[in-house]
Amino acid sequence: MTTATTKPEPNPGIIFETLNAYQRSAALKAAIELDVFSKIAEGNRTADAIAKAVGASSRAIRILCDFLVIIGFLSKSGDEYSLSVDSAMFLDRKSPAYFGGTVNFLLDPRLTAAYSDFTEVVRSGRTTLPDEGTVSHDNPIWVQFAREMMPMMAPAASEIAELVAGEGKINVLDVAAGHGIFGITIAQRNPQAHITALDWPNVLAVATENAQKFGVADRHATLPGDAFEVPLGGPYDLILVTNFFHHFDSSTCEKLMRRFHAALAPGGRCVTLEFVPNDDRVSPPVQASFAIMMLGSTVAGDAYTFSEYESMFRNAGFASSQFHALKYAPQAVILSAKL
Amino acid sequence: MTTATTKPEPNPGIIFETLNAYQRSAALKAAIELDVFSKIAEGNRTADAIAKAVGASSRAIRILCDFLVIIGFLSKSGDEYSLSVDSAMFLDRKSPAYFGGTVNFLLDPRLTAAYSDFTEVVRSGRTTLPDEGTVSHDNPIWVQFAREMMPMMAPAASEIAELVAGEGKINVLDVAAGHGIFGITIAQRNPQAHITALDWPNVLAVATENAQKFGVADRHATLPGDAFEVPLGGPYDLILVTNFFHHFDSSTCEKLMRRFHAALAPGGRCVTLEFVPNDDRVSPPVQASFAIMMLGSTVAGDAYTFSEYESMFRNAGFASSQFHALKYAPQAVILSAKL
Repeated sequence: MTTATTKPEPNPGIIFETLNAYQRSAALKAAIELDVFSKIAEGNRTADAIAKAVGASSRAIRILCDFLVIIGFLSKSGDEYSLSVDSAMFLDRKSPAYFGGTVNFLLDPRLTAAYSDFTEVVRSGRTTLPDEGTVSHDNPIWVQFAREMMPMMAPAASEIAELVAGEGKINVLDVAAGHGIFGITIAQRNPQAHITALDWPNVLAVATENAQKFGVADRHATLPGDAFEVPLGGPYDLILVTNFFHHFDSSTCEKLMRRFHAALAPGGRCVTLEFVPNDDRVSPPVQASFAIMMLGSTVAGDAYTFSEYESMFRNAGFASSQFHALKYAPQAVILSAKL
Repeated sequence: MTTATTKPEPNPGIIFETLNAYQRSAALKAAIELDVFSKIAEGNRTADAIAKAVGASSRAIRILCDFLVIIGFLSKSGDEYSLSVDSAMFLDRKSPAYFGGTVNFLLDPRLTAAYSDFTEVVRSGRTTLPDEGTVSHDNPIWVQFAREMMPMMAPAASEIAELVAGEGKINVLDVAAGHGIFGITIAQRNPQAHITALDWPNVLAVATENAQKFGVADRHATLPGDAFEVPLGGPYDLILVTNFFHHFDSSTCEKLMRRFHAALAPGGRCVTLEFVPNDDRVSPPVQASFAIMMLGSTVAGDAYTFSEYESMFRNAGFASSQFHALKYAPQAVILSAKL
């Protein structure tokens, strides 16, 4: 008996597809900006009907929608298109979970410019964006972030509130608050929670607006300034550090963690929300890919593993760190306790 | 007995991944430009060793190589990277099939600019590139194409020559010859084949250079000009029309086909190389995706199905058209015969 060894055939398709992958971003952006998904949800099914509804060329819409089928956002039956489960949930404006606006942050030219000469980024090891990249003092990109990314963060905010909001009086510092949704959701869930949102002043305007909108403005204070320098106040029971550590190298993270440790009450916890890859750094794909975003847009940021976070928090004085996977977001939560 | 219906959970990951897909193109481009694949092939396996070999930051190379693992170009074991089958074949400079240079065509800013405001392209239904887009008279992008895309086309050229080069005296017109590899490969296989390469003069310089390099210059003539206007000469036994029809609308294609029909000898054949999707226009993925390239870069181009080609060739006077899938390229060959 012989066993056939099948050697995989080389296939240039993956190179062609990857070099053209930027067209996927452009196509999804165009579909969101033209509101193609909402118009399909309203019952426009053929290229002609969709084109008429969005005010675009019928040939172009046919080609765009076929491409959206290929990359997983629509399905096609005969010449009729319909939404995928994800498109219906997140890209139809009538859906409460709509977050098409993320395109305005994720594809903001001030961010994507980091990839226009990525060879130079890899050579030099740091962003080619001006100053410190996206973490530069008062970078207006974070106002964009605060305005557009809240809906995408809402599911994670709910899961975090469920984990840590508890009952009774708590004092919460929301670091790099942005839209403010993480602190706000805790305040909604625990009527005795008091939130202090820390961020640049222009960004805090968005958080304050949201605190009013969600009815927690009376328990939502602001602390404008730089997380590395401004006196943090406290003591706090919880310090929320969401989507923040990944911008910095590990010694800078530890410096921040020490500040947070000092501002916590005994028994208080630091609540970190992050993309946390496995130790191999190549899985799971979405979490591990986040490092390339940090390479492009920061001076020394990264997607740290849990064991790296654990060690940084330990060095900063925390007694223990626990990992919590989230159900509805690719990020994970790390709860680090002060004795 | 009850059957559980599992409803798929909505997952925002695909939106995040697609909006960031442009980073895949940037990462592969950087890896090719820095020659990361060749240096790994030479035995540099760790991020530190690769970084030293290519003259780049070690942290950046680690993040880049991890990302290349995630998107399918490398594999990783411990902290050592190795090439995938495709990377070893196509992206190691020592491989005879190396075609990393395609990055210089596929990601030429004159081409990618078409996707910088893709919403406007979809709205207006035509490229936002100047004039007629990539098919504008004498567009220098085709010199780039001729210089860089030959290695990627070599496997298809071999398969075409096997199909049609035959034996004995044949007269071949190579339309939009570019690098010239399609005609040249026929001339190499059939020592009595005479090739006339038609293209813009600046592009023909590359084809002539290649004809010399491959030893067929004595049977390789050039016909500079516009395929729509220049007298074609003939009669020809074969007219090669490779990667050309997709730039035009169907009535323009038919006009060209009529010209080719008139220039063929009785029994002669038009040999079309094209990305040909199935009738559903959404499969196979690489072939069907090609339409989005034509939407971005041309006024009215498309990825036509075989039944559309068959009908265009019939309208132009051809007696029959046959479809041939290729083994080593995503494109297909259509052989259309004149009675």
